Amino acid sequence: MKLKRLKLFGDQFALSWAVCAGDVIHVAGMVGMEVDMSAPRLEKVTFPEGIEAQMRQCYKNIDYILQSVGSSLADIAEQTMFFTGDSDEATAATNVVRREVFGDLPPASATVGVAQLFDPRCRLEMKVTAYRGAGN
Amino acid sequence: MKLKRLKLFGDQFALSWAVCAGDVIHVAGMVGMEVDMSAPRLEKVTFPEGIEAQMRQCYKNIDYILQSVGSSLADIAEQTMFFTGDSDEATAATNVVRREVFGDLPPASATVGVAQLFDPRCRLEMKVTAYRGAGN
Amino acid sequence: MKLKRLKLFGDQFALSWAVCAGDVIHVAGMVGMEVDMSAPRLEKVTFPEGIEAQMRQCYKNIDYILQSVGSSLADIAEQTMFFTGDSDEATAATNVVRREVFGDLPPASATVGVAQLFDPRCRLEMKVTAYRGAGN
Repeated sequence: MKLKRLKLFGDQFALSWAVCAGDVIHVAGMVGMEVDMSAPRLEKVTFPEGIEAQMRQCYKNIDYILQSVGSSLADIAEQTMFFTGDSDEATAATNVVRREVFGDLPPASATVGVAQLFDPRCRLEMKVTAYRGAGN
Repeated sequence: MKLKRLKLFGDQFALSWAVCAGDVIHVAGMVGMEVDMSAPRLEKVTFPEGIEAQMRQCYKNIDYILQSVGSSLADIAEQTMFFTGDSDEATAATNVVRREVFGDLPPASATVGVAQLFDPRCRLEMKVTAYRGAGN
Repeated sequence: MKLKRLKLFGDQFALSWAVCAGDVIHVAGMVGMEVDMSAPRLEKVTFPEGIEAQMRQCYKNIDYILQSVGSSLADIAEQTMFFTGDSDEATAATNVVRREVFGDLPPASATVGVAQLFDPRCRLEMKVTAYRGAGN
């Protein structure tokens, strides 16, 4: 088994957006950015207003990435969401958006308020582990 | 292989407390709450005073969850503990409680002081990966 | 399969620096400390100045640990770097040091600014998942 890496934005970031170890898929560093994922350009990135909208957008981006490697959001077993700003607002957003995205089958989830993320426009950054084909 | 999810508190939280991918078990979002885990009710949750007591209680809760899926604390390979408040106190607590819980066989462990957790009464939140039957 | 644990510093820390579950290797709690890893003594630990130097040192330490269990930095699939202090400086350091360490094959990477780490001299703490023999 060899690791397989998915990059976006050419070499602008020193990270892979997903790394697959067999059927285990690690996605990290994803945020709620709006960008054409098929031809992303860093200078064109925008962020929607508010943590709920960013969370929805972040899952959309992760879905794009997982689909690119033959998986989908249903395959996510666990996630960590790092957020900035008000904690009650973040908790409320997770309740709304995770129900939309996962229905009755949510992942194991850590939600942690941090001091800062790499871009001050980001209200959240997400990290997930998915198992290809293991969802429903 | 299909993901298996363990929920508690009915649908009050949009998360699973554990998700199993075969023999790999992800537990996330657990805190040092005191509650009857077999029939938990959110309005009855209390928190013990101090990070050491909360840490002890958190492992008790994780043990309950792991036992529910045929595993135990000895199967934990790695953990992250997010804490709030004084760092020296947190470090001291990890030294005491992890020795009680794991003896000479502790997991790989990250301990990180964060800005806030979802409930201001929480001094810590824990996330673990366990491998069913791989402990001692 | 049984978990295998790698300890350093005798019993001074209640953690394992690496835990192997078959070919999956979890390393956590590593920082940019300068110490003789073959005979580490806590009172001899020093830290280089600045986040970039600490990051470089941290990877050196993780490399030592991974080599000890038959793996190497190329096997890292995902990592989280928790940092303190200035975010722009941290982002710049990740771009420089990850390119040095991983070339065109970087891991999936989360980079999160936290409130505090266990030692105020630490500018970062790292956590990685590696798959023995899966690198290039």
